[in-house]
Amino acid sequence: MAKQFDTIALVGIGLIGSSIAREIKDKGLARSVTVSSRSDATLKRAQELGLGDRYTTSAAEAVKDADLVVVSVPVGASGAVAAEIAANLKPGAIVTDVGSTKGSVIAQMAPHMPPGVHFIPGHPIAGTEYSGPDAGFIGLFKGRWCILTPLPETDEAAKAKLRTFWETLGSMVDDMDPEHHDKVLAIVSHLPHIIAYNIVGTADDLEAVTESEVIKYSASGFRDFTRLAASDPIMWRDVCLHNKDAILEMLARFSEDLAYLQRAIRWGDGDKLFDLFTRTRAIRRSIIQAGQDTEMVDFGRHAMDQK
Amino acid sequence: MAKQFDTIALVGIGLIGSSIAREIKDKGLARSVTVSSRSDATLKRAQELGLGDRYTTSAAEAVKDADLVVVSVPVGASGAVAAEIAANLKPGAIVTDVGSTKGSVIAQMAPHMPPGVHFIPGHPIAGTEYSGPDAGFIGLFKGRWCILTPLPETDEAAKAKLRTFWETLGSMVDDMDPEHHDKVLAIVSHLPHIIAYNIVGTADDLEAVTESEVIKYSASGFRDFTRLAASDPIMWRDVCLHNKDAILEMLARFSEDLAYLQRAIRWGDGDKLFDLFTRTRAIRRSIIQAGQDTEMVDFGRHAMDQK
Repeated sequence: MAKQFDTIALVGIGLIGSSIAREIKDKGLARSVTVSSRSDATLKRAQELGLGDRYTTSAAEAVKDADLVVVSVPVGASGAVAAEIAANLKPGAIVTDVGSTKGSVIAQMAPHMPPGVHFIPGHPIAGTEYSGPDAGFIGLFKGRWCILTPLPETDEAAKAKLRTFWETLGSMVDDMDPEHHDKVLAIVSHLPHIIAYNIVGTADDLEAVTESEVIKYSASGFRDFTRLAASDPIMWRDVCLHNKDAILEMLARFSEDLAYLQRAIRWGDGDKLFDLFTRTRAIRRSIIQAGQDTEMVDFGRHAMDQK
Repeated sequence: MAKQFDTIALVGIGLIGSSIAREIKDKGLARSVTVSSRSDATLKRAQELGLGDRYTTSAAEAVKDADLVVVSVPVGASGAVAAEIAANLKPGAIVTDVGSTKGSVIAQMAPHMPPGVHFIPGHPIAGTEYSGPDAGFIGLFKGRWCILTPLPETDEAAKAKLRTFWETLGSMVDDMDPEHHDKVLAIVSHLPHIIAYNIVGTADDLEAVTESEVIKYSASGFRDFTRLAASDPIMWRDVCLHNKDAILEMLARFSEDLAYLQRAIRWGDGDKLFDLFTRTRAIRRSIIQAGQDTEMVDFGRHAMDQK
């Protein structure tokens, strides 16, 4: 495939950064890739995995010659990274990120961006419950959406270039207003993670039911939540702190709805329960039809088990 | 394999009943299997699938010669089935069920059981998001636990026979007190389903985020909940109505914990969030080590996608 950039700098080389690195190499999208992590151990591992061409613990150093800079760090670290790299950014360079919150990332990074640099925030809607450079793989972005939240003044050519980059990685690309992005993600991603973490915590705290029982019988439903609840704790702490308003709104709605359901259970109102339980089936069908989940029984677990 | 029973009657032939039917035939566990469903359409489909040897819409008729009767109906229907079959049960027959609540099933069924019949309530901890006779398959019970909640007077030989039956289907078998079963299942199964139904309902009701957005971006977490929320609505309505006390207790704890988390988010208490998000990771590891979930990324979805 044709090279899309001369030099790409990857600031942060966890699950997302390392998946991007593998895709760039696999598809030959850049002449040179510089990998940066502030952790020595992570950087060493990235080097062992051969994820880039150059390696440095200095983000400032990493971005020097880059035409594309991809910042893949917990959203709470975006501001510090922006401040660190600002002076070394090449005029005409595209700077993007992969953070799960966009309003906060823009507030943290945009003020540092020098004129002539194209800052285009982004968010690939892809991930797994694993983290770190070993967790990345080719195909992570395939068939998944990537949302760009460009600022009003964003250069169209730069945006088109970044869009092509994500499309080459297999993504479908959408533009969105940052505030709307944060609301959408609060319901489709942040609330589900918080609920999953919460229910696993509740189960862990019980006195009448042992942890060993929770584990043994988890196939009856509970285990589905444990995948999200095994996600990277730093990433998710930051998401909670950086999309507070939208998350609190969704939490309030969720709790309100749960109180309604709880009341129906207490008073034995089977019709209310049946109505909700019927309505929710249709949404899964739509998700499968949209190619955003497998229709295989049990997420395909049984098929994997039989191998 | 040696025949374990002369005649088995399956009352109810949905996901669980039809999986049992397939296993019996596959492993040659009975000379004859009678399938019963009160729905003509379901019975016809069971016949097309060749799930049994005889078919009837009358549960009373079905159990006449049976040495083993397996009742696989929504728990709200257990009492009616027991009343219907009672007079026709053969002395020495084993009657079991597969219901997700045990206290209520015992209260509904036990009073109808004639002397000389061995009533041993049971609950295979296995299932999928699909329902009906087509949804069953061989292997559903493999590696999964089956909980028996025998009554104090239960005959040991009959219990051993039923245990062997489930073990032949691939299950590991545990005995448990019915009340404890209902508490354990409230946290590992009933609460997760209720929470999943609830969050899918909350998302469906939003004004600021469209349903199409929820579907498009569901891979960021939401889709994990939609599998449980696509489960059979009648079965789950009945579970909610028939394990009310334990469910209400678990809901209260869950909501309390969620309020604590919500407060940490509102006040920016990152340490509290980080602590919980770290603790929950260990539970997933234990579930994987116990063989109750796959360690494959994303439940193995990606591996399935690549095929």
